[in-house]
Amino acid sequence: MDISKFLNSAELDPLDKQPLYLQIALLIADKIHKEILPAGTKLPPERELADLFSVSRTTAINAYRKLEQMGLVWTKVGSGTYVAQTLNVESSSEVPWPQLFTAYPQNPLASILRDLVSTPAPGTISLAAGMADPALYPLDIFTELFNRNIATANLADFGHIPTEGYTPLRKAIAAMLSEKGISTSTENILTLSGSQQGLYLLSKVLLEPGDYVVMEGPTFIGAIQVFQAAGARVLSLPCSGKLSLELLEDFIVRYRPKLFYSIPTYQNPTGRVMPAQERQDLINLAKRHRLVIVEDDPYSDLYYDQKPPQSLKALDSYGGVVYLGTFSKILFPGLRTGYLAGPPVLINRLALEKQYIDLHSNNIAQWLVTMFLNEGKLAPHLETVRREYKKRRNAMTKALQRLCANDLEFTVPEGGCYFWCKLKQAGTSQRLLHEAAKNRISFVPGEAFYTMPTQDKELRLCFTAHNEAVLLESVQRLAKSLTQITKKNQDNDVSPSSVWPII
Amino acid sequence: MDISKFLNSAELDPLDKQPLYLQIALLIADKIHKEILPAGTKLPPERELADLFSVSRTTAINAYRKLEQMGLVWTKVGSGTYVAQTLNVESSSEVPWPQLFTAYPQNPLASILRDLVSTPAPGTISLAAGMADPALYPLDIFTELFNRNIATANLADFGHIPTEGYTPLRKAIAAMLSEKGISTSTENILTLSGSQQGLYLLSKVLLEPGDYVVMEGPTFIGAIQVFQAAGARVLSLPCSGKLSLELLEDFIVRYRPKLFYSIPTYQNPTGRVMPAQERQDLINLAKRHRLVIVEDDPYSDLYYDQKPPQSLKALDSYGGVVYLGTFSKILFPGLRTGYLAGPPVLINRLALEKQYIDLHSNNIAQWLVTMFLNEGKLAPHLETVRREYKKRRNAMTKALQRLCANDLEFTVPEGGCYFWCKLKQAGTSQRLLHEAAKNRISFVPGEAFYTMPTQDKELRLCFTAHNEAVLLESVQRLAKSLTQITKKNQDNDVSPSSVWPII
Repeated sequence: MDISKFLNSAELDPLDKQPLYLQIALLIADKIHKEILPAGTKLPPERELADLFSVSRTTAINAYRKLEQMGLVWTKVGSGTYVAQTLNVESSSEVPWPQLFTAYPQNPLASILRDLVSTPAPGTISLAAGMADPALYPLDIFTELFNRNIATANLADFGHIPTEGYTPLRKAIAAMLSEKGISTSTENILTLSGSQQGLYLLSKVLLEPGDYVVMEGPTFIGAIQVFQAAGARVLSLPCSGKLSLELLEDFIVRYRPKLFYSIPTYQNPTGRVMPAQERQDLINLAKRHRLVIVEDDPYSDLYYDQKPPQSLKALDSYGGVVYLGTFSKILFPGLRTGYLAGPPVLINRLALEKQYIDLHSNNIAQWLVTMFLNEGKLAPHLETVRREYKKRRNAMTKALQRLCANDLEFTVPEGGCYFWCKLKQAGTSQRLLHEAAKNRISFVPGEAFYTMPTQDKELRLCFTAHNEAVLLESVQRLAKSLTQITKKNQDNDVSPSSVWPII
Repeated sequence: MDISKFLNSAELDPLDKQPLYLQIALLIADKIHKEILPAGTKLPPERELADLFSVSRTTAINAYRKLEQMGLVWTKVGSGTYVAQTLNVESSSEVPWPQLFTAYPQNPLASILRDLVSTPAPGTISLAAGMADPALYPLDIFTELFNRNIATANLADFGHIPTEGYTPLRKAIAAMLSEKGISTSTENILTLSGSQQGLYLLSKVLLEPGDYVVMEGPTFIGAIQVFQAAGARVLSLPCSGKLSLELLEDFIVRYRPKLFYSIPTYQNPTGRVMPAQERQDLINLAKRHRLVIVEDDPYSDLYYDQKPPQSLKALDSYGGVVYLGTFSKILFPGLRTGYLAGPPVLINRLALEKQYIDLHSNNIAQWLVTMFLNEGKLAPHLETVRREYKKRRNAMTKALQRLCANDLEFTVPEGGCYFWCKLKQAGTSQRLLHEAAKNRISFVPGEAFYTMPTQDKELRLCFTAHNEAVLLESVQRLAKSLTQITKKNQDNDVSPSSVWPII
């Protein structure tokens, strides 16, 4: 067996900073684990190995010595170096792992989405994820804050801190919310490893299997998944037009739901803004029934026309609104820093739960965000971001009107990240997604945001993650995909979708 | 009502970087929320407010304007400014929060510990928490890495990344473990928000209420809490002397436990090292019964004499050992970065669960740790830390032998963070803790590490968090406390502890 074809220096990463002998040893180890070099294979003599990788003989000897230490090769004196019988964790696993796992609710749509959205073909423009544009991440400001403050930082701030969060950050967030009309102080704030964690903690603390929750339909996928994983049953409150408070009251009286999850401002995915009067009416209704409202508010700082109405939490007259915020959409997701505002008794109970999960959130991120807030960096950054996203919103509106108006209905979002569009023609948004994948453009089909089957005519397009030129290109590709499914619909004389028995 | 005694400029934080009008407004808002200034209170005229805080009249006007926007005060033209009827979230809460919460298992010891350990009197030396010394946190290295690399960093690394972890970090951890004889590659690694999260995820994925787990007795409190919160029943395997594999096999056959949780190296709290032969015998037994072993290994890099035997994971011949590691004890806790090594099928299932909890762990910390590992910073840092902690271990040994040998039994730990001591005399470690609190010294009573009642004669002392001088002082205080309880025991003619009916 000529080993040299399996081992060559081109496979070493030139940017790798580890010593060469170790890099070579790990490369060979990898091939042993993958059984490219099976047990018993004779490896090249040290001199040959040195030549293969253009290294000194000492380096080659050290590489083999390392592999011997790792138990992967053995040396027969006078004969050479051989691959040992290794304990390959994957292939020889005798523990039947999947049989040991607790049940996991499989969502069939999830796997479709994962295929089409998460692992797109190269060159695909994704309008799927609801994300800030990396080009706008304020890393320069964070770098400056880090450098100016690290030398005088309190070492204890990098040790264990209270589960409720880094106290100066809790204070800064309380001040920020007070400026928005939400009366809170430090003890009302829990910092989170992303606002997703707030949803998870609330589900642990408030929901038992079989409990009901009310959610807008459509709504944020991550919230649906967390509540359903907790065994909750979802009551869906349509939110395309006016929110029906009559239906909500009906739900309350019939099912005694544990909470109502709402995104009142620039809703995900519809972009809807709940009008001021509706907010007040909702609060009055919730107060009457002591209904807990979980207000998820990741987008309200991203307004492109006028400021949105005050948050539900600001109107809270009965202590029943729990408020979730995040820095992911306005700063960057990698901070994994979100927060929850609520009464101290709830903060305490959530912290007891959070303690099991991660003791407390990341100190470095909390320390950085504190300085960002306290030094007044947020307001100017938000102005930049709003100015830029507004241009993108406008460019996207123009392109959609020009190229897709025959096929898609949509309203222009006043803020946030999304266009919510409806197919005018036959066919479903999942079919469109398959066609779009070929044209290297992706989005999230509307079906994903519902807890009950729909006609699947809707799609969500995120416009914040790309600049205007890329957005224009993306709409051109979308228009092409729309034309293609229209043509196929005509060719195939599409019949209404049917439910077929699975046999 | 003379308001001026409730409002004065001394309460403003001179380091606060927010505008003065806002600081004043928030200070007043705080007093309104706390009802120090109740609804209807007439606030001082603007000119007086300006004098009180030594600010301009414009600043005073702006402060009141802000409070008005926040809905906290109102102005009666020609009369003055009054505190409005506010919506105080805490005091007027109409939602009966505690009634809404899911059950939470209360541990009576937990509250004792919280009182005595977490909120000690000023000047108390804590030997309680098992922590690195903040003075040894390598923040200087992190600062240098941050600065040298931030300008060329990939922006996508600060956006959303896979739940399994930052790929370069997973790769670097796999290489680090391979060097320790644990054959892993990237797909075997899950990065965690601290290794506590690994325990939580494993409990979610492997345990259903009523399942059995085997744990060493005594063992890590955090693991006990997580498994018990998942509804598991704990079988306690004594680990003070030789581990009884006969008893373990008996547990396996009788109860079919889901897993065995073990800290084989410098065990918490006993400091015990499982000998090499016992490790091999344990693996053979576990392989025969396909028993999952969760190996928690936070301390093995902290050896002060010779290197410990190879990890259980390195000996794993049946794919059943799950390995947990962390950077909290060797770098600093605020990184909240730990990792789990196991078969890909398990990593995938854990990641599906982790997605609900926090999407993925913190990017900044993962990016920094990757550079720390890849640039070879860990080995020299560990040498420094080991050298320093060895000196402390020796100083503590000498002090305990000199001052406490009559009252305490203990063995000298070969590594890790703890002395595990046993009271020779009458009285319990919880009584000692109360006495010690008066002498301003704290530790964790042994009872906390067990899942069943004990005689409570043991105590854990952490020696890594303080320098030699502080350790000496702490042992002097401990010796004094020991003398005091001995004296009290003689005075009171202590009878053996009894169980009294609760009526």
